[in-house]
Amino acid sequence: IVLALASSSLHADEPLASWNDTATKQAIVEFVERVTNNDLPDYVAPEDRIATFDNDGTLWGEHPMYTQLAFAIDRVKALAPQHPEWKTKQPFKAVLENDLPALAASGEKGLLELVMVSHAGISTAEFEAIVKDWLETARHPRFKKRYTEMTFQPMLELLAYLRANDFKTFIVSGGGVEFMRPMTQAVYGIPPEQVVGSSIKTQYEVKDGKPMLMRLAEIDFIDDKTGKPVGINKFIGKRPIASFGNSAGDREMLQWTGAGDGARLMMLVFHDDAEREYAYGPADGLPDTKFGTFPQSLMDEANEKGWHVISMKNDWKSIHPADAE
Amino acid sequence: IVLALASSSLHADEPLASWNDTATKQAIVEFVERVTNNDLPDYVAPEDRIATFDNDGTLWGEHPMYTQLAFAIDRVKALAPQHPEWKTKQPFKAVLENDLPALAASGEKGLLELVMVSHAGISTAEFEAIVKDWLETARHPRFKKRYTEMTFQPMLELLAYLRANDFKTFIVSGGGVEFMRPMTQAVYGIPPEQVVGSSIKTQYEVKDGKPMLMRLAEIDFIDDKTGKPVGINKFIGKRPIASFGNSAGDREMLQWTGAGDGARLMMLVFHDDAEREYAYGPADGLPDTKFGTFPQSLMDEANEKGWHVISMKNDWKSIHPADAE
Ligand SMILES: [Ca+2]
Ligand SMILES: [Ca+2]
Repeated sequence: IVLALASSSLHADEPLASWNDTATKQAIVEFVERVTNNDLPDYVAPEDRIATFDNDGTLWGEHPMYTQLAFAIDRVKALAPQHPEWKTKQPFKAVLENDLPALAASGEKGLLELVMVSHAGISTAEFEAIVKDWLETARHPRFKKRYTEMTFQPMLELLAYLRANDFKTFIVSGGGVEFMRPMTQAVYGIPPEQVVGSSIKTQYEVKDGKPMLMRLAEIDFIDDKTGKPVGINKFIGKRPIASFGNSAGDREMLQWTGAGDGARLMMLVFHDDAEREYAYGPADGLPDTKFGTFPQSLMDEANEKGWHVISMKNDWKSIHPADAE
Repeated sequence: IVLALASSSLHADEPLASWNDTATKQAIVEFVERVTNNDLPDYVAPEDRIATFDNDGTLWGEHPMYTQLAFAIDRVKALAPQHPEWKTKQPFKAVLENDLPALAASGEKGLLELVMVSHAGISTAEFEAIVKDWLETARHPRFKKRYTEMTFQPMLELLAYLRANDFKTFIVSGGGVEFMRPMTQAVYGIPPEQVVGSSIKTQYEVKDGKPMLMRLAEIDFIDDKTGKPVGINKFIGKRPIASFGNSAGDREMLQWTGAGDGARLMMLVFHDDAEREYAYGPADGLPDTKFGTFPQSLMDEANEKGWHVISMKNDWKSIHPADAE
């Protein structure tokens, strides 16, 4: 307990303790000082200090596959006894046979079908309970820890640092909003009402006098690419002054953030650390990936527009919370 | 200034100063004491003190017509020179000839077409500027004041009272979210990100290198009736412990709020004061209306389920902020 206290008071003195003293950390601190100092021309009132964060690959890991896909696969396996037809039908057959190449070959349409089938047909309350239970029991295949421990310590510190400077922090993610909300308060300090994400439709029903919201196998909103500024406008109604992402899906969110007046901070996490986490691009010649693609065109746009690229390898002292302890 | 200070310190002592000392006011105070007292079994942690408010007819007036309809009519008149075909085409003809019976006869479909045409085809930034300008210049036909002064003083005090007790207050309205957001912070103390409403679709476009969101003539979401619990789940992700409405459109929101565990407060504003505001039902034999219908079935459900009906006439000392000064 004494050690924990000492460590937390150290963190209070050094709000970005897990960041190396590089230009990236300096850019964050300078930006926050510019917008919070009432004497400077770029001062922003607290109610307009909106910061938006992508989730997968930005706040927590996304390899070897998106966490929500790992969840969907486990759901399909759990539901399989009620669906004997899945033994011969793709993409379910691939899931049941742990055939990842065949699963990948089913493409976005196949993955979407997997998510739909495994996430729908139950009430919002039932779904929340299933997600919470899964997050407690499932483990990451490489690090053998809960997925909620696969968060990035420097980003947790960044969230806390921004909030300590009266920013309101939002998640704006392509992931399912109801998959994220059960854990965002405890893990990121972000309440459900500040989580924007993709969603399926729900329907209000009264069963035996008890109102419930049933989850339908129908897409409501895809919060990715051009959907991110649309989602920001729909859910937040204000333009962020800072936004953080890690892949091509965040390009438009960063463009939208950058197009506002006054000081702006746009950052992209670049996974260039195969040893401590993963390395993928294909930007800068790193291996290509289907999960969190960072194309060269995004790297070029970042350099051209002054978006900061966070190098995991060089800018982060530690990666996961367990490493920082 | 001395008087204003005296009055504001009086209000600090008496947070619901414009409410008469009736059972309705007592129900509010008792509920807040129950959920904020850590020693009582119904205590609710601050982050779960979610209160949702309908807007039209609950926080501000809706007669002789919804404020947004008055806005749409003014927009159609402003756009008419570019649309000579409107002179002979309903519902536009009715608007241009100030023929309200013909306009009403066009039904919901006609009104929706009016709103679509007058609210779409421009960017979100342009629309916001038009709404702000209209709210500055338009006047209510009976009270001759700005629509933002047609708010209900007792409800403003209720919002402030709840927030003083660490509630987070949200608007959940059938009105257009982008019609409300330009004024909710100044008028209600509710920031844009806590406003849930109906919406049309927007599309991200980059014009001359400048990103913008264009408003399309296509419905995205109708936040009314069963849409209210759906919207609450989608935007807030938590069940409210208190909700406030005034018409059939709020029935499901109150059902959804009431179906949660622990102490709950559900209230309906009943417009029974023709002298100081308006009187309409058709519940309790008051005149029927197309704007904010309060049917007898809703009154019966309220009585059966212990939802409180706020009588404007008996429960409110004053109606509009100007009366309370
Ligand atoms: Ca991502
Ligand atoms: Ca209403």
